[in-house]
Amino acid sequence: MATTYRDIKADILARITRGALAPGALIPNELELAETYDCARATVNRAMRELAEEGVIERKRKAGTRVRLAPRREARVPIPIVRHEIEATGARYRYSLLSREETTAPDWLRDRLSLLYGARALHLTCLHFADGAPYQYEDRWISLDMLPHAADADFTATGPNEWLVAAIPFSNAEIAFGAVAADADAAAHLACTEATPLFQTERSTWWQGEAITFVRLWFRPGYRLETRY
Amino acid sequence: MATTYRDIKADILARITRGALAPGALIPNELELAETYDCARATVNRAMRELAEEGVIERKRKAGTRVRLAPRREARVPIPIVRHEIEATGARYRYSLLSREETTAPDWLRDRLSLLYGARALHLTCLHFADGAPYQYEDRWISLDMLPHAADADFTATGPNEWLVAAIPFSNAEIAFGAVAADADAAAHLACTEATPLFQTERSTWWQGEAITFVRLWFRPGYRLETRY
Repeated sequence: MATTYRDIKADILARITRGALAPGALIPNELELAETYDCARATVNRAMRELAEEGVIERKRKAGTRVRLAPRREARVPIPIVRHEIEATGARYRYSLLSREETTAPDWLRDRLSLLYGARALHLTCLHFADGAPYQYEDRWISLDMLPHAADADFTATGPNEWLVAAIPFSNAEIAFGAVAADADAAAHLACTEATPLFQTERSTWWQGEAITFVRLWFRPGYRLETRY
Repeated sequence: MATTYRDIKADILARITRGALAPGALIPNELELAETYDCARATVNRAMRELAEEGVIERKRKAGTRVRLAPRREARVPIPIVRHEIEATGARYRYSLLSREETTAPDWLRDRLSLLYGARALHLTCLHFADGAPYQYEDRWISLDMLPHAADADFTATGPNEWLVAAIPFSNAEIAFGAVAADADAAAHLACTEATPLFQTERSTWWQGEAITFVRLWFRPGYRLETRY
């Protein structure tokens, strides 16, 4: 039976899978392959074209065709509004503002966000529920020097994250993910025992070179942040 | 003193910061702005051009110029080879293979990677050190049906992640981040007490539609995964 372009693709893939062709390895040119597979050059060409489109091989005019090297790997992690995250699971979202205080930024916050001495800040704590069960506990600081109108916003109905997304057109952020033991405060809000391992996110957001907000989020026990690349 | 394009930019930014212009809000056209600011239209034009380049406003031929909406937010989290991650901090990397076993894939693994009944797998456990202290504990499974030559690889000198990156040209992965309590095994390897909160990553990697590896990684206590967007 005649060799098809599918046979050639399968053979190249099998050679990579067996380790006979490693990333970076040079693949013979189309004339040589046509001889090896005893088929028309057009058949080889189609196999090579599809392997290139699928990202398995790379064709360069001068350097020849090589098995592609693994790309620089990174995962894209969505940073959704928590209401959208909860509603996407089919659960009912509920939000509760626990505390609200206008105050002077504490030293650790000034340090973290490069705020001036005496800077004013709005400190909010909130709880986000999925189907009535606590899902995320939020401890939020907003710079009132940068966003003075945050002082007039009504955070009893809408969470500060949703408000900020609607208030500021574009932002840069620094994010850290980690695992922490629930302290008494987080444990009480998330209905778990103290020292339970919790997934935590910290995020500082900047706009036009100035820090506007810092937030620390504790997720319910067992929470997993899932993504793909 | 004459109004400069910088004055106009600063005024638009201040209006956004004060909440007078929200994301999506329409900005008057250049003729109107030139009248408002009592300046040449070219001055307004330069201010608008720079605000557009900086991503603060969006100019559309028919819809007019608007304050830009917050983009869909996502963080890019690098998935480095652990040796690179450790060496990037200036620490000395050391690697140790703890165990190696060729075995039949257990039910939970077949389930997770859609492997056939009786599929063969290579099970490795390894420890990665930074300056002599345990940094990451790795529990790795490799499908020997997909990558039979993994059975011949020497994993005493090179970790399986480095070997896989060199063996397979391109891959898709599913990743989950979470917080778990250290079990006796992880605690012993990472030199911490049982129940210490640990940051954990789980990753399934696929190539050409077939699962090739599943790994569970426990990081040392206090580890934070940091990124920005």
